[in-house]
Amino acid sequence: MGPQIFLFVLATLFLSSHAQNNAVANPILQLRPLSGAGGHHIKGVNCQSWRLAVETNNLQGWTLVPQSCESYVGHYMLGHQYRLDCEAVADAAIEYAKTVKPAADGKDVWVFDIDETTLSNLPYYARSDVEFGAIAYNDTKFNEWVAEGKAPPVPAILNLYLEVQSLGFKTVFLSGTAAKFTGVRIANLHESGYHEWEKLILKGDDQHGKTAVQYKSDKRTDLVKQGYRIVGNVGDQWSDLIGTNVGSRTFKVPDPMYYIA
Amino acid sequence: MGPQIFLFVLATLFLSSHAQNNAVANPILQLRPLSGAGGHHIKGVNCQSWRLAVETNNLQGWTLVPQSCESYVGHYMLGHQYRLDCEAVADAAIEYAKTVKPAADGKDVWVFDIDETTLSNLPYYARSDVEFGAIAYNDTKFNEWVAEGKAPPVPAILNLYLEVQSLGFKTVFLSGTAAKFTGVRIANLHESGYHEWEKLILKGDDQHGKTAVQYKSDKRTDLVKQGYRIVGNVGDQWSDLIGTNVGSRTFKVPDPMYYIA
Repeated sequence: MGPQIFLFVLATLFLSSHAQNNAVANPILQLRPLSGAGGHHIKGVNCQSWRLAVETNNLQGWTLVPQSCESYVGHYMLGHQYRLDCEAVADAAIEYAKTVKPAADGKDVWVFDIDETTLSNLPYYARSDVEFGAIAYNDTKFNEWVAEGKAPPVPAILNLYLEVQSLGFKTVFLSGTAAKFTGVRIANLHESGYHEWEKLILKGDDQHGKTAVQYKSDKRTDLVKQGYRIVGNVGDQWSDLIGTNVGSRTFKVPDPMYYIA
Repeated sequence: MGPQIFLFVLATLFLSSHAQNNAVANPILQLRPLSGAGGHHIKGVNCQSWRLAVETNNLQGWTLVPQSCESYVGHYMLGHQYRLDCEAVADAAIEYAKTVKPAADGKDVWVFDIDETTLSNLPYYARSDVEFGAIAYNDTKFNEWVAEGKAPPVPAILNLYLEVQSLGFKTVFLSGTAAKFTGVRIANLHESGYHEWEKLILKGDDQHGKTAVQYKSDKRTDLVKQGYRIVGNVGDQWSDLIGTNVGSRTFKVPDPMYYIA
């Protein structure tokens, strides 16, 4: 057979196989967002729907990324879409920040969570013994990684941080990291491009036993009692963004790798 | 050239062109979720990121679907992913509902919004003079559609409604629809498979001027004062799910077509 016929046969085979993979018979539907990482329909859990349910706080208290979504989550986190999604968070926050005029008293603050918000643990989560959260959380291993102090910034959120500072807001870091890591965290923040802040609040021993929602609500309430006005609040966990004194606006940074209550 | 060489050249051409379309040079990244409806990168706004920002309430007060995302939103709403996403909402809600034992007093209720939650206005939004929300909202036209009483159910949410009833919960419909549509809405709900409810609350003239957040908070507070316990609260707008007495758990149904404050 000549090249043209061969091309036709090959094209036909490719299109059939494509249609079958996506269970699509209608050309309009081929334009819909694909299900799963490679466009394969994943049995049981649809990973795109699972991620949306996580991001909207519809799914709570989950402990592991579904095994069938490990590859999907990995490709999402390492790929372009996660970065674009973070940029959309920063864009929305900056657009809002520009509508607020900080008062002269220096008490208008933006609260930033640290892990998966200002700093990224992706080098750790991409490890084969972590599998983007599809393997059970290991406190010892994770703390060893934190102690290295080598977490890179989340670029879009670093940009947001610099932008709100240039608009005249103060910044507060509020993290569930244990206070014993204060030194290494300060070094890591500096190394990643975060050079100044009004307060850095890590979790002291006196906060032991509190959920993240309780701990962060209490610390935000302390800020408000000290006269601060929380203009914006940025975090990757809903426990950063719910509770009391959450701030005038909250911004959810994507994180399909773990859940903190 | 022989078929094998030809196949190799064709495969190379296909892969190169694919890589160029997605601005991807790394084979791992080719597995990431595609940007935009047909995998085309849309300049300015990334429609997947825009939709995620809407669903997480990062973007507030928007009045129109971005023109460049009209096609993306249309394909999403008419395609498989919207249905899968709604099923994931229902699955999460049912999983939670099964953990709660309704008391014998019949006061444990699930609150459901109506539009884009229990009933779908997709036949209206798909019209060429509406363009899935990319054309400005027209009150007169929309009310004409509501008056027809022909909105189909959102299948996954009908399933959730039937499931929570079978688990022993009462249901309350709480909608911003004007009370003058009470008759047609009752007929539409029955026609779509919703046959009983504890209360159907539509927006009376006395509620005029309230935002959706205020109106719905007030009505939920009334329910609580009447002794009801709001176990679950299901809506497509964040204004259904924030404010006071939101319920023990809230469930965000996808809706990238419009925003109600």
